[in-house]
Amino acid sequence: MQIAIVLYDRFTALDAVGPYETLGRIPGAETVFVAEEAGPVRNDTGNLALVADRTLADVPNPGIVVVPGGPGQGALMEHAPLLDWLRTADATSTWTTSVCTGSLLLAAAGLLRGRRATSHWLTLEELKRFGAEPTGERVVTDGKYVTAAGVSSGIDMGLTLLGRVAGDEHAQIVQLATEYDPQPPYDAGSPGKAPAHLVELLRTHAEAILT
Amino acid sequence: MQIAIVLYDRFTALDAVGPYETLGRIPGAETVFVAEEAGPVRNDTGNLALVADRTLADVPNPGIVVVPGGPGQGALMEHAPLLDWLRTADATSTWTTSVCTGSLLLAAAGLLRGRRATSHWLTLEELKRFGAEPTGERVVTDGKYVTAAGVSSGIDMGLTLLGRVAGDEHAQIVQLATEYDPQPPYDAGSPGKAPAHLVELLRTHAEAILT
Repeated sequence: MQIAIVLYDRFTALDAVGPYETLGRIPGAETVFVAEEAGPVRNDTGNLALVADRTLADVPNPGIVVVPGGPGQGALMEHAPLLDWLRTADATSTWTTSVCTGSLLLAAAGLLRGRRATSHWLTLEELKRFGAEPTGERVVTDGKYVTAAGVSSGIDMGLTLLGRVAGDEHAQIVQLATEYDPQPPYDAGSPGKAPAHLVELLRTHAEAILT
Repeated sequence: MQIAIVLYDRFTALDAVGPYETLGRIPGAETVFVAEEAGPVRNDTGNLALVADRTLADVPNPGIVVVPGGPGQGALMEHAPLLDWLRTADATSTWTTSVCTGSLLLAAAGLLRGRRATSHWLTLEELKRFGAEPTGERVVTDGKYVTAAGVSSGIDMGLTLLGRVAGDEHAQIVQLATEYDPQPPYDAGSPGKAPAHLVELLRTHAEAILT
């Protein structure tokens, strides 16, 4: 079984690495980072590159597809080579998953029509354009489609799906090994919990503040 | 201000990327991934490489040092080029930090003598060999030394230190932007919470189970 984690220019690193460290621990599975071209792929801030060891064409039939998010989805949502690969891979995958705005790419590929799905809270409503039904949950499973909310939620998605695929005990072992006993120093991790003025600030100035 | 995140063969990817996505968002700071040699550096499982854009020698005086962990610390704890760089960088750093077994490298460099510190729960006691005082807390600050427990705790460490350096509001903005509102599907993230037989299994067979 192959787990393909898709990289592209301006992806968000934690979106990819969260599922990698959890879901990627399926016994016997091979995790492979893929991109249109093999080699280093730069992230959203430009100061980190992860290496795509294989091209999309090298890995046409992964058992699990993981699509991270990133701030540059506009052009990607019309980028045929990526969308075509997603459709082809999805045709034979057991699970098709995303983190953050990765779900917009799945949706743009036509894979989430009529499905419940999630995305980063700032882009949740965009899913409707493609016939998906946005929900405010952190991890949403609809059939074989598992979508996660923003960035760090990929860890929860990864552990959730790991439990489905490899069993609850194995997922708990991985949780213990990664010491995933979160203790955030603040309680501001979702728009319903963060101070309202900070939610508004991000709604209006996310790009300027974060990149 | 430079934030240097240190890569070396068999580092754990989430240890590096967790602080990167949080602490790395200090306004105006430059985050740089460094290693003994520039270029791709393979992680603990071998199927992911992050690119070190600069050598250790290129970045002798970072304001913040971040040392991720990994399962191959035995040899590294006697590897002079790395330990020498840590001592030199620490001499002028504002903050010296680690995630997981990264603290063993700081300790081996002689930087944690007489200090309270933490590490992955499986290696906590090893800190004593180097005169550090292990604690069971998830994020430990002693003077300018901030150490975090296993793997995923680097996210909590990163947000905690981000709050100290850039203010609580900015840290909350980053928490909201990364949607860090964790909802693990299990409550097995620390040895005090996980089923006892799984704790024992990892104590005896961690390497075989996880790599």
